[in-house]
Amino acid sequence: MQHAIRLAARGPARGINPQVGCVILDADGATIAEGWHRGAGTPHAEADALSRLAPGAAEGATAVVTLEPCNHTGRTGPCSEALIAAGVARVVHAVSDPNPRAAGGATRLREAGVEVDGGVLASEVEDLLGDWLTTARLGRPVVTVKWASSLDGRAAAADGSSQWITGAPARHDVHARRSASDAIAVGTGTVLADDPSLTARAADGSLLADQPVPVVFGHRAVPADAALRRGEHEPVQVTGDDLAADLRALHDRGIRSLFVEGGPTLASAFIAAGLVDEVLVYLAPVLIGGPRLALQDIGVATLSAAPRLRIERIHRLGDDLLVIAAPEKGQ
Amino acid sequence: MQHAIRLAARGPARGINPQVGCVILDADGATIAEGWHRGAGTPHAEADALSRLAPGAAEGATAVVTLEPCNHTGRTGPCSEALIAAGVARVVHAVSDPNPRAAGGATRLREAGVEVDGGVLASEVEDLLGDWLTTARLGRPVVTVKWASSLDGRAAAADGSSQWITGAPARHDVHARRSASDAIAVGTGTVLADDPSLTARAADGSLLADQPVPVVFGHRAVPADAALRRGEHEPVQVTGDDLAADLRALHDRGIRSLFVEGGPTLASAFIAAGLVDEVLVYLAPVLIGGPRLALQDIGVATLSAAPRLRIERIHRLGDDLLVIAAPEKGQ
Ligand SMILES: NC(=O)c1ccc[n+]([C@@H]2O[C@H](COP(=O)([O-])OP(=O)(O)OC[C@H]3O[C@@H](n4cnc5c(N)ncnc54)[C@H](OP(=O)(O)O)[C@@H]3O)[C@@H](O)[C@H]2O)c1
Ligand SMILES: NC(=O)c1ccc[n+]([C@@H]2O[C@H](COP(=O)([O-])OP(=O)(O)OC[C@H]3O[C@@H](n4cnc5c(N)ncnc54)[C@H](OP(=O)(O)O)[C@@H]3O)[C@@H](O)[C@H]2O)c1
Repeated sequence: MQHAIRLAARGPARGINPQVGCVILDADGATIAEGWHRGAGTPHAEADALSRLAPGAAEGATAVVTLEPCNHTGRTGPCSEALIAAGVARVVHAVSDPNPRAAGGATRLREAGVEVDGGVLASEVEDLLGDWLTTARLGRPVVTVKWASSLDGRAAAADGSSQWITGAPARHDVHARRSASDAIAVGTGTVLADDPSLTARAADGSLLADQPVPVVFGHRAVPADAALRRGEHEPVQVTGDDLAADLRALHDRGIRSLFVEGGPTLASAFIAAGLVDEVLVYLAPVLIGGPRLALQDIGVATLSAAPRLRIERIHRLGDDLLVIAAPEKGQ
Repeated sequence: MQHAIRLAARGPARGINPQVGCVILDADGATIAEGWHRGAGTPHAEADALSRLAPGAAEGATAVVTLEPCNHTGRTGPCSEALIAAGVARVVHAVSDPNPRAAGGATRLREAGVEVDGGVLASEVEDLLGDWLTTARLGRPVVTVKWASSLDGRAAAADGSSQWITGAPARHDVHARRSASDAIAVGTGTVLADDPSLTARAADGSLLADQPVPVVFGHRAVPADAALRRGEHEPVQVTGDDLAADLRALHDRGIRSLFVEGGPTLASAFIAAGLVDEVLVYLAPVLIGGPRLALQDIGVATLSAAPRLRIERIHRLGDDLLVIAAPEKGQ
């Protein structure tokens, strides 16, 4: 399995599909083939390994694979059937397939008389799969909602001025987190008001190596000359009418992590829908008062109905504070 | 001067008047009398020391006193005149009198031919005088504004429910700070809505040793059966029409530290008036949204006009966060 994990790690870490590795051993335990998955549209690790063997060579063999063999026909046929057809006698896997549409491989193999052992080195493979596994289990990207506000919860002054609420260290932290995310989301309100580029930039203004996909939520059109159209990635627009469905659609495009930057309307909608895994609040030591709130109505009528979070970390970033919180489990 | 400081410390640390000590030395440097101030309405330290000497015994002596001798006729006559009349040749003091109505003693003494040296062990005496000195210089109590809010700056849910936004450790911290304050202030809105007792209590509900004076800001009457009337101290009511004047009046009653607990209207008025020395924000990891804000309008039209603070300390209190901030100097 260690060897299968090393093979898996050769595949691409970003993208719609997981990193998977496979080793085929003969009856004496000698490696007779290896394979790994190279990304969407290419063979799965099991198929890749089997393809390196002469017909009949896998008869009675053991397949060691990091992820439970899939049972569904996508761009490649089900791996369970391929292993059965090749005469494999035993399958050892680490992690069960979290995707409801692909799961069932182990059951299918057992029905066909193949011995199946799951859970071997599972935690190492879980570490390798990281976000892919989390998002596959959720059926949507991991969602972070971020806002910057004054100590009294304002996102802007009465006249709308909001640039530089927080200082440079907080802004650099945001750019690093953008770069680590597959996609950044804003509402059409922010696009039309601020024309943000939604790129991840270094302190000197240069682009960081990893750029997120810009995602716009809302019905209104993104202007043809919008700054976010000039980045490395085509922007994606979804209506926001059904946030859960929009997230599934983003997940289907391979987006595993979504960094929701606002504005207040979109952030409030995500929180009200309970579709948030992490909240980042950049708090600037300033008092603003007035009507421009970082969060608006989130449908909480009474205190006991308010979503409770756990404060996970607090960072001082220059003069500012970053509070990282996550919803309490079981809400 | 060390001996004078020890004498000063015998006086009461709370109250309208400072702790002051005085030692009278003869021409050979031997102590011939000592005195200290025992609180409002009693003799000042210099008068107390002089009263222990036979007439004429202070002729040519040196008076060592922790605070510049006063020059004004209050409940006792000016100490400058008493020292001159007694024939004292030299006065050594630590700290100048910060009270504009009492200051001028050193000048008066010099005019009468007395040698005066100030600033001896000044920082030790400043430490002893603490709040009294700060507030005497400000001409008002030190003002702390405290609120408890959700991470998004709400003080209550839409239906007004606000009890238990923060947890027990945060509430105990508030009670300890109440006990350390001379007075707690609330607006009539809070009195009428919540009927708070404004006492400082231990975790088991028992009263702590030091109870603050309850101060109510506003025109509306405090009901005869209000809980805050049942405490150890008579409540004080001021109109709030001129907060600076109200603070001077509280200072004149010996209130050196005022803990402003709200509600949002009163807290916002103090911040808008720039009469705040410390802001305590108890942040609970909960999101509420909606209309009930911890701070309301504070007269900030544009971001550059917003009062900037310095974050001085952050404490984790159970699940909650306490952010202690102070206005940036020079605002
Ligand atoms: N301080 C900060 O951290 C921060 C961050 C970002 C923005 N801002 C400020 O926020 C302001 C813009 O605020 P905003 O609230 O109008 O912008 P917004 O949240 O970016 O956009 C609101 C729009 O999002 C669309 N939308 C998509 N899905 C939605 C859903 N499920 N529920 C509700 N609306 C949904 C709607 O547009 P359609 O009508 O097109 O469908 C809605 O009008 C700007 O002034 C910007 O400077 C501040
Ligand atoms: N989460 C928290 O930390 C917290 C703390 C305290 C209270 N609360 C909640 O806050 C609510 C009460 O809020 P509130 O804002 O109505 O109460 P408030 O601030 O206690 O009282 C407002 C009143 O204060 C008087 N006032 C005195 N000086 C003033 C000035 N300079 N400017 C403006 N008003 C002045 C006015 O009363 P007159 O008309 O009588 O002159 C005004 O109506 C309650 O529901 C309470 O539960 C929350």
